[in-house]
Amino acid sequence: MKKANKKVNAAIIIIGNEILSGRTQDINLMILSKWLNGLGVKIEEVRIVPDNEIAIVHTVNFLRKRFNYIFTTGGIGPTHDDITSKSIANAFNLKYGKHKQAYKLLENYYESKNFTTGRKKMAKLPAKSSLILNPSSGAPGFIVENVYCLPGVPSILNSMLGGLNNKIVGGKKIYSNTINIKTVESEIASSLEKTQRKYKNTEIGSYPFFKQGKIGVSIVIRSSEKNIINKCSNEIKKFIKKKGIKILERN
Amino acid sequence: MKKANKKVNAAIIIIGNEILSGRTQDINLMILSKWLNGLGVKIEEVRIVPDNEIAIVHTVNFLRKRFNYIFTTGGIGPTHDDITSKSIANAFNLKYGKHKQAYKLLENYYESKNFTTGRKKMAKLPAKSSLILNPSSGAPGFIVENVYCLPGVPSILNSMLGGLNNKIVGGKKIYSNTINIKTVESEIASSLEKTQRKYKNTEIGSYPFFKQGKIGVSIVIRSSEKNIINKCSNEIKKFIKKKGIKILERN
Repeated sequence: MKKANKKVNAAIIIIGNEILSGRTQDINLMILSKWLNGLGVKIEEVRIVPDNEIAIVHTVNFLRKRFNYIFTTGGIGPTHDDITSKSIANAFNLKYGKHKQAYKLLENYYESKNFTTGRKKMAKLPAKSSLILNPSSGAPGFIVENVYCLPGVPSILNSMLGGLNNKIVGGKKIYSNTINIKTVESEIASSLEKTQRKYKNTEIGSYPFFKQGKIGVSIVIRSSEKNIINKCSNEIKKFIKKKGIKILERN
Repeated sequence: MKKANKKVNAAIIIIGNEILSGRTQDINLMILSKWLNGLGVKIEEVRIVPDNEIAIVHTVNFLRKRFNYIFTTGGIGPTHDDITSKSIANAFNLKYGKHKQAYKLLENYYESKNFTTGRKKMAKLPAKSSLILNPSSGAPGFIVENVYCLPGVPSILNSMLGGLNNKIVGGKKIYSNTINIKTVESEIASSLEKTQRKYKNTEIGSYPFFKQGKIGVSIVIRSSEKNIINKCSNEIKKFIKKKGIKILERN
């Protein structure tokens, strides 16, 4: 994997009425963010939009100029509500039609008698897009410039990411450390703010948790510099100790 | 609950680095969409943005003019990374400062010795905002015009929705019916498309599932007219039967 010594960011576009309606719980964001974190790419915005061509075109065209990478999920299957390929073609002013390589790939994957009209639709892509191979179920994803289009089914999406590892040029990897403590946020708010002011390029997050009657706070320190994370963590642990707050084993 | 006999829509803004980084799985969208569906409000866009004032202000100001209701989640706690209240004040050009009613409410909730500086921050809100009461943990949410600001912790957010039921003026309620069948999408794609063309104002979604070795497709029919859903469902069941596809008991 090539490395750029700078920040590299991404936006995710989740396409699907089923996510907006609450029918389906999205988990692709978490899969993508963990994968991209490992490659040194930071997700800085996510938009969830309906199966609506105007919404998709607008969103893609707005975001693709502002982020290094765009990943879309959903809408590349064989049914009428799968309109991602057509919408991406329109967003880039490209022809939408039979993609020879995708067609061959699907023809080989299905026995010829099973390569139905419905499945042939999955070989219709924006002209000149390059393919993202699908080891789970044949139908490929595709790439147009910096826009990477993946399916909505999490297990299939997940199986396709490995093939992209050497296509993504990430930046500095972001590391994190979590300190879990038995207290409420208000007890540490001002000390934590002081620490954040001192470590301007480090992202310090504070997240209360309430689980099985237990309460606590997770403090998360994120930075591309491991030694800064250590230094910052030690400073936080110092004021925690001074306040008599217990550190919890928990991840 | 008042009812408007028209479409009423909403956008959700999920505020939090922890969602973008993959540390935390959002489940508030699903809680909000199920609640809003019941009130006749359709979520048409979701944006997930970082704890960054410029991003929040821009997103709020873009969306609030385009949707009937905006709901934000996250960032209203006591720590330095909780910047939603300040950002909303800026988005609306309102003063950000001590909100008397919120201050009183928090003063009563905590014993006065526990009403610490950190907690006092949660009484700083955009001027003239009205409060969303919090039966779980005291700290209120707030409303400015059509923007409703809720906390990020799902159990707390959920407990606050009941108090909003009579503030939201919904439109026609959207009903849905799901037909689960044992097949693959490509087998039904063209018949389903024909049905969709016939029922233009009905939303027909097709969602493949793969679970424990079983495959199938969920067809979801959504409309504000129950009789249209029934008619459309019957037509779909007809072509399913004709194709010899098995209908599954599954929800």
